[in-house]
Amino acid sequence: MIETDILIIGAGPAGLFTVFEAGLLRMHCHIIDALPQMGGQLSELYPKKPIFDIPGFPSVLAGELVDNLYEQVKQFEPGFTFNEAAARLHKLDENLFEVITDKGTVHRAKAVIIAGGLGSFEPKKPPIESISKYEENGVSYFVKRPEDYAGKNVVIAGGGDSALDWTVHLAEIAESVTLIHRRNEFRGALDSVEKVKRLKQQGKINLITPAEVIDLQGEDHLTAIVIEKEGMMHTVETDHFIPLFGLVPKLGPLADWGLELEKNAIKVDNSRDFQTNISGVYAVGDINTYPFKMKLILCGFHEAAIACQSIYQRLNPNKKFVLKYTTVSGIEGFDGTKKEAEKQVVSTLD
Amino acid sequence: MIETDILIIGAGPAGLFTVFEAGLLRMHCHIIDALPQMGGQLSELYPKKPIFDIPGFPSVLAGELVDNLYEQVKQFEPGFTFNEAAARLHKLDENLFEVITDKGTVHRAKAVIIAGGLGSFEPKKPPIESISKYEENGVSYFVKRPEDYAGKNVVIAGGGDSALDWTVHLAEIAESVTLIHRRNEFRGALDSVEKVKRLKQQGKINLITPAEVIDLQGEDHLTAIVIEKEGMMHTVETDHFIPLFGLVPKLGPLADWGLELEKNAIKVDNSRDFQTNISGVYAVGDINTYPFKMKLILCGFHEAAIACQSIYQRLNPNKKFVLKYTTVSGIEGFDGTKKEAEKQVVSTLD
Repeated sequence: MIETDILIIGAGPAGLFTVFEAGLLRMHCHIIDALPQMGGQLSELYPKKPIFDIPGFPSVLAGELVDNLYEQVKQFEPGFTFNEAAARLHKLDENLFEVITDKGTVHRAKAVIIAGGLGSFEPKKPPIESISKYEENGVSYFVKRPEDYAGKNVVIAGGGDSALDWTVHLAEIAESVTLIHRRNEFRGALDSVEKVKRLKQQGKINLITPAEVIDLQGEDHLTAIVIEKEGMMHTVETDHFIPLFGLVPKLGPLADWGLELEKNAIKVDNSRDFQTNISGVYAVGDINTYPFKMKLILCGFHEAAIACQSIYQRLNPNKKFVLKYTTVSGIEGFDGTKKEAEKQVVSTLD
Repeated sequence: MIETDILIIGAGPAGLFTVFEAGLLRMHCHIIDALPQMGGQLSELYPKKPIFDIPGFPSVLAGELVDNLYEQVKQFEPGFTFNEAAARLHKLDENLFEVITDKGTVHRAKAVIIAGGLGSFEPKKPPIESISKYEENGVSYFVKRPEDYAGKNVVIAGGGDSALDWTVHLAEIAESVTLIHRRNEFRGALDSVEKVKRLKQQGKINLITPAEVIDLQGEDHLTAIVIEKEGMMHTVETDHFIPLFGLVPKLGPLADWGLELEKNAIKVDNSRDFQTNISGVYAVGDINTYPFKMKLILCGFHEAAIACQSIYQRLNPNKKFVLKYTTVSGIEGFDGTKKEAEKQVVSTLD
């Protein structure tokens, strides 16, 4: 069982920044995310795209923003449970919650902040009947550890950035990489398209278009795929098949937690502290809704700060909440590190 | 008369970022500030101090944050009225406001956002009876244009960072610089204290401590000051006297605008759009108050975004507000510049 002060569901920018605001108030956080890494949409959907509306950054790449946020919060030592989705919520007591993931990991915390963005991202799966049999046995919808593909034959399917980028990346590692797409045209960043073209010309990857994977073969583990190309069937031997057809956000199991919902988002009380209808459970960032809500990262930051203040007051009803300015008092991590402004010196000028 | 869509009172971080959010919605802004430059407290009180709680910046100097914000908003071409304080507000019509400064400049706008921080900063003045006579005639509480002191004799009074920093700066420009402080000890950044020490040792500045300026002399313009040092009076000839005793924030004339106040701050409706009790007049950043309010820069950013959305809806009651993501649609300045993510290409891979 994992125990903490605040359990955060979602490791996107709002979830990450929550760790910082909680840390300033000496509360520890643990984050659950269904994706294999932190950053949410920013890491998964557009790590190399610039964002122009983060205050103070005329332009910042989404991936850089995530790196910066982790750098900012890491001294507050957040725990992470990756690759697991929050499945069930139990309120055990006014200030004690239990959240169990789809893999059965049990988390307990004094308060819960849902920072789930658009929900958990689920891969769009190709319509192959037998595919579920091969999941974890040769079929993956994410590349979690590229090194697992060393010396293996890999087939990637898809026509967008993910398919192009992983083709480039795995071409260095795998024994062979075959890229299959149902159209002749690919859509991606100029740079990625150029790199894949070069690999093709150098014979370092195989390209099969227009074609679709229609069946999978193998006893316990995938050994081959069947493709249909211009009305003909072909069998291609392979160890791994990675369909990268994009992700669909799903509110998922959260929808059954008894939270008041509106248009696929969680209603919160913006006149106070972004608490949901379950007291002690908050929602911040793109997953919440209220009058005048804007789904902007900068709004998630504000909501996280207010929610942490409210939790502090819940857990410390007799203490006065005193806002400290980081510029004045510095910040002290749970890892013993301290950041602070250079001290003023008092000196005569002789 | 200066006309714009949104008149912003206060050029601090919240006021500056408002220009960006308004610009995305194609609304022009003009900013009034009593200080001689943008940045509010950040520029005036602690430009060289690090801030640790701006999301995405593990650490950023206050002055750098101001520079970054201006870089971010400048393509939306904000107008500025510096060195003037907003003195009077008249609501001429539901969507027409007039704000007149203490120097008589008339501004008209469709909406007003007060982003006045802790209020306007007023200098602490030394208790010298005749001092008001010499204001603008040899006595200044801010250094607005350093070049005005070229070839002049200057006396600076004070013991903190401003006094030290301007002593260093003006030592290069003025004919002579004398620094007077009522104690022997100065309090400032190590670097500033060291620099002043060095100038003293090199004979490039005069230092008189412990001493106080108790009288001023001169017909129309200052010609000398009288100081008291250890019980003795001395007269020192000088062209300029710059007392730098710090600033005190004052809500000032805003307090008489009919706005609902609470503890020296302006009450706003946080359940909606940060509007004050005067419809069409908003308050964002440290100057406003509401349940769970935190005086953090990041909260001002959020409030500014929501206020701009609300103003857009006021002024365009029949248009649907559609949130555009800058990563997807890019941003287009009023100066004709455009920032956008690299376009995706569609290509075959032959």
